[in-house]
Amino acid sequence: MTVSIAHLGPSGTYAEAAALAYAQYLTGKTGEETMLCPCSSISQTLWTVAKGDANIGVVPVENSIEGSVTMTLDTLWQIGCLQIQQALILPIAHALISQAKDLANIQVVYSHPQALAQCQGWLEKHLSDVPLIAKNSTTEALQYVRDESHAAAIASLRAAELYQLPVLAHSINDYPDNCTKFLVVSLQPSGSGKYTSLGFSVPANVPGALAKPLAIFADRGINLSRIESRPSKRSLGDYLFFMDLEADSDQPSVQLALAELKTFTETLKVFGSYTLLNLD
Amino acid sequence: MTVSIAHLGPSGTYAEAAALAYAQYLTGKTGEETMLCPCSSISQTLWTVAKGDANIGVVPVENSIEGSVTMTLDTLWQIGCLQIQQALILPIAHALISQAKDLANIQVVYSHPQALAQCQGWLEKHLSDVPLIAKNSTTEALQYVRDESHAAAIASLRAAELYQLPVLAHSINDYPDNCTKFLVVSLQPSGSGKYTSLGFSVPANVPGALAKPLAIFADRGINLSRIESRPSKRSLGDYLFFMDLEADSDQPSVQLALAELKTFTETLKVFGSYTLLNLD
Repeated sequence: MTVSIAHLGPSGTYAEAAALAYAQYLTGKTGEETMLCPCSSISQTLWTVAKGDANIGVVPVENSIEGSVTMTLDTLWQIGCLQIQQALILPIAHALISQAKDLANIQVVYSHPQALAQCQGWLEKHLSDVPLIAKNSTTEALQYVRDESHAAAIASLRAAELYQLPVLAHSINDYPDNCTKFLVVSLQPSGSGKYTSLGFSVPANVPGALAKPLAIFADRGINLSRIESRPSKRSLGDYLFFMDLEADSDQPSVQLALAELKTFTETLKVFGSYTLLNLD
Repeated sequence: MTVSIAHLGPSGTYAEAAALAYAQYLTGKTGEETMLCPCSSISQTLWTVAKGDANIGVVPVENSIEGSVTMTLDTLWQIGCLQIQQALILPIAHALISQAKDLANIQVVYSHPQALAQCQGWLEKHLSDVPLIAKNSTTEALQYVRDESHAAAIASLRAAELYQLPVLAHSINDYPDNCTKFLVVSLQPSGSGKYTSLGFSVPANVPGALAKPLAIFADRGINLSRIESRPSKRSLGDYLFFMDLEADSDQPSVQLALAELKTFTETLKVFGSYTLLNLD
């Protein structure tokens, strides 16, 4: 069987790099063949898997500088039935790609909004008066560099090679420890692993509405590696919460904690337990 | 004395609408004259106030659908010395503005990324194959509508009037209860009011690192109306936390809670106490 892997396309995005690395890992581990399915957005990537049009999906969930990818959290909650099989950490290094001879000839910079934000300091220092234009993906930005000799794009070195375009500057991200966490999701039940992700809404905004759920885990010595609030989209001040536990949902203490958590929440969705894979 | 008010420009942005409404409120209350200072970004708006080049700044901090404006939280933390004087709630209704005769003639839609995201469902239904292009502000998008007869922009009705451009559709936001919270900040000490905002980092990611700070408030019956995590930008999994308390920092119980909180945090910044003003 060929395993189809949905990701944000087109060729050359960081999401494709993560999907490719996971495909190699999967083939090495199980011998299965894989096929990449580029999608036009993160939301479409997740829905493609939810509808059964791809076996698995690889989506970015968090960057070390810019924080959560809110589209991923909101869509995972909306779909509800996708389970996390694996988390991947991909180091991110941005390059400035252009056919211009030097920085002085650049009149516009295109990239994905997160990539522009991650190079903000460098851009203010070296290209302070140049307009920055947001595109749907880092590689969509490269199409403009091919057509316009005074345009630049921010994308990966790999994308520059793939599209055979010159690199004017490399590692222009403001923080060197820039990396992105991706989730591998599917309709299959998740396995076991050191991390467990969940989301929940609380019935009313009363004192302790969040303190109680947090105490449930603290009292059992279960570490929360992450907590994120997202608007419920019902009214301002009404939130959903997303948590990552450093614990396997197979552990009896975690199962007890989740059972207790259920009594304090309106809706509780457990997105599965999984391990973390570093792609270097 | 004329009070100068920095905000994200140019003319016609929602931030300008909030700044104008606050200016009217201020003149009505104190008789002071006001002057608007449009800035090119949220970060620049806050730094303009921090450097003393404007008396106060009005910045968006949270939308009921899209969530936190992370640039505002990150820059408030970075600057550290700005104090919140007032919060404002502005209802948001988006219009599709274009010189095209009807929807079938629209070939491209420009707007701020948050406005595009807030009209996502409407755009998928009515303009599914039309490319969406992100601009720095909703009114920057309007400049393209003036020049290109097949372009549309998403902005406010007020912006359409200001730029004398036709409105093709109104209230196209996917959720009717769309509103944005703005903060009024300055270098002056904040006053008193029902809400208190603070940010903190915790020394190490151990079980209960966040549960303890939350329990401090829950034990005293102090409601947290909001909690938000942001990356510390040091490494993946290392966070800052932002909290809004429904309590005045003048209250003895809140002062005790803050003193206790300090013992659990690495850095604690209190951004002030303030009241909430609805702009209808």
